[in-house]
Amino acid sequence: MTYPWPDAGTPLEDVPTPMPVIDEDRLAANIARAQAYFDGHGMAFRPHIKTHKIIAVAEAQRAAGAVGLNCQKISEAEVFADAGFEDILITYNILGAAKLRRLRALHERVPRLAVVADSATTVDGLAGAFDAARPLTVLVECDTGGRRCGVQTPEAATDLAARIAAAPALRFGGILTYPATGGASAVEAFIAGTMTLLAARGLDCPVRSSGGSPDLWKAHLVPSATEHRAGTYVYNDRSMVRAGHCKRQDLAMHILATVVSRPAEDRAVLDAGSKALTSDLLGFADYGEIEGHEGARIVSLSEEHAVVDLKDCRGAFPAIGSVVHIVPNHTCVVSNLFDRMVFHRGGIVTRVEEVAARGTVW
Amino acid sequence: MTYPWPDAGTPLEDVPTPMPVIDEDRLAANIARAQAYFDGHGMAFRPHIKTHKIIAVAEAQRAAGAVGLNCQKISEAEVFADAGFEDILITYNILGAAKLRRLRALHERVPRLAVVADSATTVDGLAGAFDAARPLTVLVECDTGGRRCGVQTPEAATDLAARIAAAPALRFGGILTYPATGGASAVEAFIAGTMTLLAARGLDCPVRSSGGSPDLWKAHLVPSATEHRAGTYVYNDRSMVRAGHCKRQDLAMHILATVVSRPAEDRAVLDAGSKALTSDLLGFADYGEIEGHEGARIVSLSEEHAVVDLKDCRGAFPAIGSVVHIVPNHTCVVSNLFDRMVFHRGGIVTRVEEVAARGTVW
Repeated sequence: MTYPWPDAGTPLEDVPTPMPVIDEDRLAANIARAQAYFDGHGMAFRPHIKTHKIIAVAEAQRAAGAVGLNCQKISEAEVFADAGFEDILITYNILGAAKLRRLRALHERVPRLAVVADSATTVDGLAGAFDAARPLTVLVECDTGGRRCGVQTPEAATDLAARIAAAPALRFGGILTYPATGGASAVEAFIAGTMTLLAARGLDCPVRSSGGSPDLWKAHLVPSATEHRAGTYVYNDRSMVRAGHCKRQDLAMHILATVVSRPAEDRAVLDAGSKALTSDLLGFADYGEIEGHEGARIVSLSEEHAVVDLKDCRGAFPAIGSVVHIVPNHTCVVSNLFDRMVFHRGGIVTRVEEVAARGTVW
Repeated sequence: MTYPWPDAGTPLEDVPTPMPVIDEDRLAANIARAQAYFDGHGMAFRPHIKTHKIIAVAEAQRAAGAVGLNCQKISEAEVFADAGFEDILITYNILGAAKLRRLRALHERVPRLAVVADSATTVDGLAGAFDAARPLTVLVECDTGGRRCGVQTPEAATDLAARIAAAPALRFGGILTYPATGGASAVEAFIAGTMTLLAARGLDCPVRSSGGSPDLWKAHLVPSATEHRAGTYVYNDRSMVRAGHCKRQDLAMHILATVVSRPAEDRAVLDAGSKALTSDLLGFADYGEIEGHEGARIVSLSEEHAVVDLKDCRGAFPAIGSVVHIVPNHTCVVSNLFDRMVFHRGGIVTRVEEVAARGTVW
């Protein structure tokens, strides 16, 4: 199906809703500010593409000075490899014969490709799928308090590193953590402790990679880390404002939505439901903020409707047919719903970019 | 990007994860059972395409006897019109010049197209965009307890119906409600009350449309309704089992996921996160059920990871690299994340269908 996405020059008022839109100036400022911070601290910065999945945005991150990209899936890395990116870290345990074959094909054409592992099963699978002639770089994923993946102790990290280093088809690249919950001192202690143990075994640990947008401005408080990875900082969202990562004027993504119903005095309905905003609450009690209408709360979503409780809304709420601007709780999942993303400067559409790595599966 | 979706004949074990898969036999049984129910009660049945967004599934629903389709967006209706569907109801307030132009173009080529309205603003917009030579059918959306859109009283419904009937470019088609919360008697009272008021004004009300999968088997308890609309019944999900709408053996969609990490004794991590399952809780405390592993609870999702709490898991949980089958809380939002859907019979892939109406915007 051909679909009439807005041309450059279209005012935002004429963009169909529901539609996320990206403010060019805020996007550029977010990219520049984060890169300047890492440059100032002598740390490498590796943006995670999960937030935007757009080639042109990754190119802007690279032009600003990013050392490479962070992907979460082989299929995402393929999209960026096709676009000429030469340094890609896939922060995922890759398992199974089919995915390993695909990873190997990717490795043939990406000059600097690396993955992570947090178990002997993952390491052994990788070791059997690659060749000593072109070893794959593998980092050990560590759990420094995030309680997701990752080995639990510096001792376990060191054992797994030794297993990687012992495999002719693999190269031990370093250690990695996400999210760096637990405070900088705990993360530093885990990393430094692991480095000491690795050194005692004669193992070099060139990369120590920390991650996360909420902790981005504290990355320098982990002096043993050599690089930081982050995604959400590029657009920002309501959760990043709450975390103190950014201010409201740094919010680069809004979702345009139309008021489609005013069934009762205290209720409005918007055309942005869970298929536009997603149901991500991230600890909030409602599904996003409506700019300029404090107290109007998006209390429930169905797939194509947002129900807004106006009980505590100060001032008049826009009439049926009006467009409002919503600050989403979480930008990364919104990008994952749209095939293209509309960019604007000062309310005038500048370009429409394909969300090229959306819908890729493994 | 070309992407190797599985060919027919591939065993599910070789399908890349995370991936939703549809059981052909359960799908066919769900379609047949619902249609037989409505046939038995002499009610028309209008499936909502929101759950599948797939042309072939809609064709199966039509072949079983569905009177037409229910869409939520103009762009969805365009996809099904392109596929030759001739009876489409868009259950949405369509507002704004651009969408009205697009709706008019659709009306030129769909023999039986109808929309809904719950305000004078929506009705007046439609009235100004269509012609008496080819009037558009408009139903009045009523709020019978669902507290989403809809006029609040039979009196308001009647007034809006009169406004539609008075517009030369529009035809009053009847009344509609969703969801029919509040119990069958309340819905029946609203519909019957509106019909009485309409009759007093000399207005015919040919269609009385109720909706929702949870209430599907109670549709006959609203004798004044002439048709019912439902989407989720076609795949079913965890919320439908809880609602008593279906049994576990009627669950046609599972999400295949791989165990990618076992960082601790009481924790496993799967490769299905909020970008595969969505964050829809629908009142549940966790993000889906893992078939055959009672007590293993998906307690948190990040974008590409599900964290499984194994504290109360009975028996051994599958090892790293194993594939598990997840019953999603909500199927409709899962369909909205994937460009194609994999179908199987007895664990062997039968076909891969494009989710053709996914990613359409207005």
